[in-house]
Amino acid sequence: MLPKRVLMGPGPSDVYPEVLAAMARPTIGHLDPAFVEFMDGLNERLRYTFQTENTATLPISAPGSAGMECCMVNLLEPGDEVVIAVNGVFGMRLMENARRCGAKPVAVEFEWGTPVDPGKVEDVLKAHPDAVALAFVHSETSTGVRSDAEALCKLARQHDCLSIVDAVTTLGGIELRVDDWGVDAIYSGTQKCLSAPPGLSPVSFNEAAMARIQSRKTPPQSWFLDMNLLTGYWGPGAKRAYHHTAPINSLYALDEALRILQKEGIENSWDRHAANHQQLRAGLEAMGLEFYVETDYRLPQLNAVKVPDGVDEAAVRSFLLNNFNLEIGAGLGPLAGKIWRIGLMGASSTPKHVDLCLEGMKAALA
Amino acid sequence: MLPKRVLMGPGPSDVYPEVLAAMARPTIGHLDPAFVEFMDGLNERLRYTFQTENTATLPISAPGSAGMECCMVNLLEPGDEVVIAVNGVFGMRLMENARRCGAKPVAVEFEWGTPVDPGKVEDVLKAHPDAVALAFVHSETSTGVRSDAEALCKLARQHDCLSIVDAVTTLGGIELRVDDWGVDAIYSGTQKCLSAPPGLSPVSFNEAAMARIQSRKTPPQSWFLDMNLLTGYWGPGAKRAYHHTAPINSLYALDEALRILQKEGIENSWDRHAANHQQLRAGLEAMGLEFYVETDYRLPQLNAVKVPDGVDEAAVRSFLLNNFNLEIGAGLGPLAGKIWRIGLMGASSTPKHVDLCLEGMKAALA
Repeated sequence: MLPKRVLMGPGPSDVYPEVLAAMARPTIGHLDPAFVEFMDGLNERLRYTFQTENTATLPISAPGSAGMECCMVNLLEPGDEVVIAVNGVFGMRLMENARRCGAKPVAVEFEWGTPVDPGKVEDVLKAHPDAVALAFVHSETSTGVRSDAEALCKLARQHDCLSIVDAVTTLGGIELRVDDWGVDAIYSGTQKCLSAPPGLSPVSFNEAAMARIQSRKTPPQSWFLDMNLLTGYWGPGAKRAYHHTAPINSLYALDEALRILQKEGIENSWDRHAANHQQLRAGLEAMGLEFYVETDYRLPQLNAVKVPDGVDEAAVRSFLLNNFNLEIGAGLGPLAGKIWRIGLMGASSTPKHVDLCLEGMKAALA
Repeated sequence: MLPKRVLMGPGPSDVYPEVLAAMARPTIGHLDPAFVEFMDGLNERLRYTFQTENTATLPISAPGSAGMECCMVNLLEPGDEVVIAVNGVFGMRLMENARRCGAKPVAVEFEWGTPVDPGKVEDVLKAHPDAVALAFVHSETSTGVRSDAEALCKLARQHDCLSIVDAVTTLGGIELRVDDWGVDAIYSGTQKCLSAPPGLSPVSFNEAAMARIQSRKTPPQSWFLDMNLLTGYWGPGAKRAYHHTAPINSLYALDEALRILQKEGIENSWDRHAANHQQLRAGLEAMGLEFYVETDYRLPQLNAVKVPDGVDEAAVRSFLLNNFNLEIGAGLGPLAGKIWRIGLMGASSTPKHVDLCLEGMKAALA
């Protein structure tokens, strides 16, 4: 039997018991009229969560990385220039996806732990007038940094680019307003601030993005992720044409998680994440620990904390896991060994979690 | 609340209660040492189910269609010739996948409801000596037809082609011996004869297939489905390099379903599927109904039954759903309106299911 953990890493986060219970509901058919009705409700809740009216809002039947790939393969054609802001692992992954689409990615690079600077992005957009899209990561899970998605989407529009936004760690945790900010295409994950198990990737495409897809010269290279086919199944008002077998039980879980979020209210959820971050911050700073990211750009739901000199970061994580059943995350890439990543996401963003983490860290560093 | 159904369509099938319970276990991290140990056990059970020793045996984090795409994007490079047997929907989907890889697919077409004729495939392989792969569907879910996978894999080998086998509806339901038959690459699904919820696609690649992938001139067009990266996470003996967040709870469910299968014994499972098919067949024929597929090529787990003249096939399905909470499947493509597809898969392959179906059909056709 696997142990029960408290999940305070970069995701998955703790899953609400109601969500786990929903996941165990009896499986029904993906074309069952009752399921089709369920899909409409789920999509409506996704629209609320993304703060959008986009018709093409649906959960991709695979984790967040597939949501990223969905945006890239649908919106890029071979030879297309795309500007990509890179300030961590997921910006790099966007670059790799663009290359695999046969597109010409132009990287705008920033030091890890710093946000995307819109000014620098604007210079690159000016230098690449043929670019068709600007892709960036709103909440960089690898560094705990928040960038200014609203400003970047505005820049994309001014330069006749579609905006592609990674909101995997954003959704439910910090402010995100897809329609107000003019986001063209966005993807997220279920296992961060939504607190459903990992495995699905909610995406949303506005009309401009869907028009781009419909006017492609060639079909997207992925059949599985082809938004024209996916919207034929997901509707609404679609003919529910069979595409692939939907992951029924994972969708039950996502729907339940979205119901919990909607009941709380999305703004309240953002506020809760901010408040618990402040509590964690106060406790960690009282212990003499420092944050890696400057105050203004910190993600409340993912705290990058510097490993003090002379401390074995892996030993601390093992100690927490073995003595507190508490998972926190390691640094990635250039930040490996230099930071811990402490998640306060969704069901893991509570005062109790903060207290447990502080207690554990005190014991580990004693 | 969604209704509880009895699932006797082309999948999903009924899910074992133990599997649903496993799916609701507390989520843990995808890099947790305890989870990494769990992965080794799961992969070992997948090897048993596929009857293979292939190291590269793992569950793709998305439904069967993604498993198909995984095989195609990894094994085909732009310009590659690939021979594809087409005798139903999923053969057509293989064609579409090949086209989206930039490969040159050569279709060998057969009437829907008939098996792939190895003689005809051999002629095409002879006429296309540069073909790098032969892809075919072992159990065509759209028509209920079984083809001779062993003979086709042998042909592929004789013509220096890799064999790519669709075993979505096969796995656990009829004989399949990956190593003995010399299958090079194979994909399946969880929601058919394994009776786990839909959402994952077990795949297995032998050394020849992995060698082909490692010697590609360009990386596979899909980052999410790149077998070089996936085997870096799934091991065994791998460094468990983070690729994407694994769908933890869906993997719990799959593992539990594989434990149930292993406890029964795979040959016993094949025999059970055959026996329940014979019972259904006797009952349906006693009612004057006829099978669409010739005796020798019928899938025991998916029964294509002719809709009698003058009967509204959709009305029968609605009647069963509304009066018996029983789902059976419709025909697809050229067989729409002409057949029903009655599944006896995994947990849905029991004498009780057969009895319920016969009772329902009698009432519907009375």
